Amino acid sequence: MQLLEERILMDGNVIGEGVLKVDSFLNHQMDMTLFQEMGKEWKRLFTDRPINKILTIEASGIGIACVAAQYFDVPVVFAKKAQSINIEGDVYSTKIESFTHKRTYDVIVSKKFIGPEDHVLIIDDFLANGCALEGLIEIVEQSGATIEGIGIAIEKGFQRGGKIIRDKGIRLESLAIIDSMENGKVTFRK
Amino acid sequence: MQLLEERILMDGNVIGEGVLKVDSFLNHQMDMTLFQEMGKEWKRLFTDRPINKILTIEASGIGIACVAAQYFDVPVVFAKKAQSINIEGDVYSTKIESFTHKRTYDVIVSKKFIGPEDHVLIIDDFLANGCALEGLIEIVEQSGATIEGIGIAIEKGFQRGGKIIRDKGIRLESLAIIDSMENGKVTFRK
Repeated sequence: MQLLEERILMDGNVIGEGVLKVDSFLNHQMDMTLFQEMGKEWKRLFTDRPINKILTIEASGIGIACVAAQYFDVPVVFAKKAQSINIEGDVYSTKIESFTHKRTYDVIVSKKFIGPEDHVLIIDDFLANGCALEGLIEIVEQSGATIEGIGIAIEKGFQRGGKIIRDKGIRLESLAIIDSMENGKVTFRK
Repeated sequence: MQLLEERILMDGNVIGEGVLKVDSFLNHQMDMTLFQEMGKEWKRLFTDRPINKILTIEASGIGIACVAAQYFDVPVVFAKKAQSINIEGDVYSTKIESFTHKRTYDVIVSKKFIGPEDHVLIIDDFLANGCALEGLIEIVEQSGATIEGIGIAIEKGFQRGGKIIRDKGIRLESLAIIDSMENGKVTFRK
């Protein structure tokens, strides 16, 4: 998606070893005009799929998922990290390893909100090693729902996550795939 | 706001001592049609204010804030709980006590995204004792920005938060104010 690639080149910053900071428009400050265009693009890409629910994970997936959900006219469910006393007992749960935060999270979704009748689009901001996505996929599989596809804003194509997901046979649409960030220069997959 | 009050009566559940569960439409599964109407209502209420940025806090404030921000045509910044290695050093920070999770969080916002020139609308899903809001207010005050107002979805009017905020002279617009949940029956402020 040209608009997102241009924005990454303009406002993204490569720092250190393989870290791309996009906090000025994607995951700390959030640009709603960009999110709307991303939502329209996913709707165009998945228009043949009978999606009735979008699943994401807190925190930075929520804004993107909500804006996108308006174009699908479906509700959003977000997976929660760690147990809250305000969530009732009946939950799907899995563990997700976070390299960013150097820890492992328990992730839960209430059984009330996903079941065998659902057709789910998973949306998240980043795909790198794929740990978060594998957790969300496991939760959908526990629920018996159908995964219609996965929409990612930025995929780090030089990490293993994208290959793992595509090898499962799941349709994955990343709006920008970065093949290299060597010497601070971002190169996108053609 | 009648639509939100009706939804609370239809789908909300009072459990135990003063806990209102609205996880089927507000803070776990999220209803975009409702969020859009809430966003329009805040835009109507704050239409005289020169708002150029919306501030919220992860996680459940993000979806509401993003959908609302589309009606103001402004970006959203969300305050993050706990330090991430992907946030650069220069941050505003404060501590927020969470009664729900029975712990204290460090909350941070990058200095890049709020400054003295900004006119901020704070949005969050719940107002009870006001701890989260007081933290967000403190962050805006640290930045030198102007607080133009606060938009809350559901205020528990029988807890102290609303009075604390209004006593500061800040304009607070809660779309549903609950005065009582005795015996499981929700009563709204007229």
